[in-house]
Amino acid sequence: MTPSSSPIPDLAALLSLAHDLADAAREVIRPYFRQPIDVDLKVDHTPVTIADREAERVMRSMLADRVPEHGVVGEEFGADRAEAEWVWVLDPIDGTQAFLSGQPTFGTLIALLHNGTPILGLIDQAITRERWVGAQGEGATLNGAAIQTRLCTDLSTATVFATSPAMFQEADAACFERLSERANLVRYGLDCYAYGLLALGFVDVVAECQMELHDYAALVPIVEAAGGVISDWRGEPLKMGSDGRVLALGDTALQMEALRLLDGEQAVE
Amino acid sequence: MTPSSSPIPDLAALLSLAHDLADAAREVIRPYFRQPIDVDLKVDHTPVTIADREAERVMRSMLADRVPEHGVVGEEFGADRAEAEWVWVLDPIDGTQAFLSGQPTFGTLIALLHNGTPILGLIDQAITRERWVGAQGEGATLNGAAIQTRLCTDLSTATVFATSPAMFQEADAACFERLSERANLVRYGLDCYAYGLLALGFVDVVAECQMELHDYAALVPIVEAAGGVISDWRGEPLKMGSDGRVLALGDTALQMEALRLLDGEQAVE
Repeated sequence: MTPSSSPIPDLAALLSLAHDLADAAREVIRPYFRQPIDVDLKVDHTPVTIADREAERVMRSMLADRVPEHGVVGEEFGADRAEAEWVWVLDPIDGTQAFLSGQPTFGTLIALLHNGTPILGLIDQAITRERWVGAQGEGATLNGAAIQTRLCTDLSTATVFATSPAMFQEADAACFERLSERANLVRYGLDCYAYGLLALGFVDVVAECQMELHDYAALVPIVEAAGGVISDWRGEPLKMGSDGRVLALGDTALQMEALRLLDGEQAVE
Repeated sequence: MTPSSSPIPDLAALLSLAHDLADAAREVIRPYFRQPIDVDLKVDHTPVTIADREAERVMRSMLADRVPEHGVVGEEFGADRAEAEWVWVLDPIDGTQAFLSGQPTFGTLIALLHNGTPILGLIDQAITRERWVGAQGEGATLNGAAIQTRLCTDLSTATVFATSPAMFQEADAACFERLSERANLVRYGLDCYAYGLLALGFVDVVAECQMELHDYAALVPIVEAAGGVISDWRGEPLKMGSDGRVLALGDTALQMEALRLLDGEQAVE
């Protein structure tokens, strides 16, 4: 690849490829939205549809054509060359339950990892045609317009999101309750879209757990490039192999308090 | 008014007026979405913004011009002639918290009551430009296309929605838990939009409480016209003066089981 002034070699080409993947996934997904389609349950009892599978297939096929030396990790079809220097992480439909309920807040997640660290992320909402992009060393955008997180230095004024209260089991539930009971407002139900709203400056905190690499990898560069901070519940960077606990904050000033309330050390198995 | 073949005198004119109100509210609301705006807290500690107030004002002004003999009950500016034969019930932004979080799932609710019973209802999502309409004796529509609820004869396959687990206090929380633990999936966070998805056939049950007349009046004709059933937790029709507990089902066959699980008698103060 041609060296450039960006910390990422040939970032423009990689961003262009990410957009092409998202365009292709969007065209696959849109015709299935709010149509009666079959739902299969995976071994983890989460649902999957032909829309998830076809969207991932078309993205993997494009990657095999254009960057055959890169690795790919996808929610539906697993890992190829996951040890490669450059690895694409794909979640064709993050929020399949929202998709199946006709709720236009699911998202296609596309991340590029360099040596295990997410350096480029994209969230695409196929129905509302909203696309968030963030890359290390670059700003974050929504449909091409620069965005940034908002200030929030006091948790008692914060809006906190999580996809569902049911994702917090046992010790994690107590941790989340300590955080959420200090917040101004707790809302549920948005999957990746909540991180997009955080990057856009309308949500202050997202705390979740039971997240897989394909759920969180794309969120990291977007939240960071928008001025926020995202980590596990111990404040460690999210990367391949993280434990699935995620804390995103629009204002870095809240991070210490939020981590203390989540009591990350206690939450670790 | 001119008599017509519909059970409602001059339904076409009343529907046209409802659309005009929704058009006007939409134009007020859209420019405020995802903009920094001031938030005031009402006496019940719920938020209100200039968008709520301006949208209700423009609708009330139109009603005063076009049907001065009709009553109006609005969330933000109270009741005028609430004892009239025909009363319009307005919620300019149902889901102000969603609106403030940048989430395009809030809705403008417009209902027309005849002697206290909702006979025409409209949900308008100003950002996605989705509009649900239902009227007694007529079908339900989304953006003009006929819609209907889906079959669901087994609660263990049902998708259940509620705006927030925090709306269920004390005995109501136990009632909702009995219902939700039998369901296939419980999701939160959509306000009136969940009833739209139920009418559209992608959600099976919505159970909520602490609802005011302006929250539920518009939902009744939409859910019923789409083939579903909506009542309080004792199975009684929703009307002016209901206790704020709402149960909507896409398939009437589930109603008895859902009412039994909600244990309406116990839930009553």
